[in-house]
Amino acid sequence: MSLRCISKRSGSFESSGIRKVFDLASKLSDPINLSIGQPDFDVPDVGRKAMIDAINSHHSGYTPTQGLSQLRSAIQHQIDERYHHSDRVVFISSGTSGALTLALLSTVDAGDEVIFFEPYFVMYYSLTCMVGGLPVPVSTYPDFSYDIDRLADAITPRTKAIILNSPSNPTGKIATRAEVKAIAEIAAERDILLISDEIYKTFCYDVEFVSPAEYNDRTLVLDGFSKSSGMAGWRVGFVHGQGELIEQMLKFQQYTFVCAPHVGQLGALAVMDADMSEQIAGYRKRRNMILESLDGFYEINKPDGAFYMFPKIPKGYNSASEFVERGINEFSLLVIPGNVFSRVDTHFRISYSAPEKTIKRGIEALKKLAIQN
Amino acid sequence: MSLRCISKRSGSFESSGIRKVFDLASKLSDPINLSIGQPDFDVPDVGRKAMIDAINSHHSGYTPTQGLSQLRSAIQHQIDERYHHSDRVVFISSGTSGALTLALLSTVDAGDEVIFFEPYFVMYYSLTCMVGGLPVPVSTYPDFSYDIDRLADAITPRTKAIILNSPSNPTGKIATRAEVKAIAEIAAERDILLISDEIYKTFCYDVEFVSPAEYNDRTLVLDGFSKSSGMAGWRVGFVHGQGELIEQMLKFQQYTFVCAPHVGQLGALAVMDADMSEQIAGYRKRRNMILESLDGFYEINKPDGAFYMFPKIPKGYNSASEFVERGINEFSLLVIPGNVFSRVDTHFRISYSAPEKTIKRGIEALKKLAIQN
Repeated sequence: MSLRCISKRSGSFESSGIRKVFDLASKLSDPINLSIGQPDFDVPDVGRKAMIDAINSHHSGYTPTQGLSQLRSAIQHQIDERYHHSDRVVFISSGTSGALTLALLSTVDAGDEVIFFEPYFVMYYSLTCMVGGLPVPVSTYPDFSYDIDRLADAITPRTKAIILNSPSNPTGKIATRAEVKAIAEIAAERDILLISDEIYKTFCYDVEFVSPAEYNDRTLVLDGFSKSSGMAGWRVGFVHGQGELIEQMLKFQQYTFVCAPHVGQLGALAVMDADMSEQIAGYRKRRNMILESLDGFYEINKPDGAFYMFPKIPKGYNSASEFVERGINEFSLLVIPGNVFSRVDTHFRISYSAPEKTIKRGIEALKKLAIQN
Repeated sequence: MSLRCISKRSGSFESSGIRKVFDLASKLSDPINLSIGQPDFDVPDVGRKAMIDAINSHHSGYTPTQGLSQLRSAIQHQIDERYHHSDRVVFISSGTSGALTLALLSTVDAGDEVIFFEPYFVMYYSLTCMVGGLPVPVSTYPDFSYDIDRLADAITPRTKAIILNSPSNPTGKIATRAEVKAIAEIAAERDILLISDEIYKTFCYDVEFVSPAEYNDRTLVLDGFSKSSGMAGWRVGFVHGQGELIEQMLKFQQYTFVCAPHVGQLGALAVMDADMSEQIAGYRKRRNMILESLDGFYEINKPDGAFYMFPKIPKGYNSASEFVERGINEFSLLVIPGNVFSRVDTHFRISYSAPEKTIKRGIEALKKLAIQN
């Protein structure tokens, strides 16, 4: 870095490897794109209609910092019905990423440690660095199950938060009830904030989703409409947790995000109870198609949720990065190498948030990449 | 603070005093609201139409981190035409507040100093604290003109940035060409980043707006559509500055704001050349109405721009907070006390972004508050 003005903080983490693949994607003429991190369905019609009505009704100004009261109340009502916690307050954030940013600003000081499970969503690492914290990945290799002894060993007096992401990006793993209970209880016992990133909770195919908030009433839950309602570009998420922590997060929101987009909040209100079962069934079908087609070609832990899977690279490749590069060069195939989500580079992420035609082309390319080596 | 999880950072600044007035406002039945920090006109029709078209065309996904290429190119073209700087890169932010957040994250480390002029927009203070920096207000009292000697005296080896906000919130002051030139030159000479917050530049009534980027090609300019196009709730701003700094800001954007709202960006593209002269003429008229009506009652530095003025409290009041409280209790009048924007509490902010009827009621209340004491 040559400019005097650039902060040391800027050097503490890297630009996302996903973005590099996206930049590559924009240069390929007809890529087989299995790298997408958002749904390929649109906002339900009822949501689009509500947003058009909102524009026609001149809803163009700020909302309150905490979000529109009608959206907040509607979500608060559902959360109260579900958890019956005496101290669980909802507010509207600018997406789940916005919520995570506010959560870490509100809780992590320089030198504090943040535990999350590896492979991990890339933001957990970068945002921990951004606020001056130390990322502490706890490995879930080889089968992505949660080992509570490993978690307990990683806890120190400086541990400020544990992040759980189930269903997981990039593995699709859904934590079992027993795993969730154990994680929730250890966090409660040690008075460590448990942050539950539940953005993919609508995408469950075979097993139930369990929130750690069922077992730990201090859990901070991050959620949103980006994935469940196909509205990633609208930047509307929500958060619920203990009132005192929410108050701090809102203080940071005032000065940074200000508020989630007004019209998007009205769209979220319209779609919050929309039936997405058809879309979810479509994703289940695509997951099954890939699992069946790649059986014998790749070692894959069957993903229960989200729209990702995280296969091991086939024999003969030195790293996932090498494998991904070959896929791009030979087949214009876009998948994400494991080192984006991990300290090791042994797996790669497939997103099946893509048309069936693309998935079929992807399967053929992946088979060839496994055989020819 | 009782929760163990809350960061020390959270204690480094306060919730905005403006929000406290807004909370009060929501409890009054028919307030005379002269506290609003956003335009009272809506997005031009061409923008609303473009956004409805965007919804109908299913633009619901993420945009690139740096914003939609068509919006970025259009702004880049205008900026290049205007400045002809060899290294000036544009990107789209989530409002000007989002841009300021990214700017300070990218430049200020713990203990670094940030200079801004007092009275100041409240975010400059809070966000500097949020990133661990030290706010260094340089007073412009009593007439809000920029004293370059005071600025020079405030500079130390730890000074990382100077923020200029012209037209100013809360004073409405527009820096003169000579003042802008002097500030731009001192920043260049001392190799201190100059951040120019130009969000109110469309609102100029008598004098020209001058950007310090004319005199200092390293100036980082923050701008947006919230005020100029009546779309504060859409959260779309833009930034231009040196490529290397912009690259760092985009790295932070990837992990926090992700991207500005997609549909809002298409709205911004549609309105960027819209004729707002009628709206600006309306604000000029309201400013003049207040200045003429309060002549003899209040000491007011004539504001040249934005939609604020910052009168001195009348004799007989101990503080602006006391004055504002009296206004609320006796007339349901909402204005903002000076201590929100300042270390002193001797003035108050009037926003004339309100219907003429409200302004007339406000004038009567303000006259009575000045006389009766």
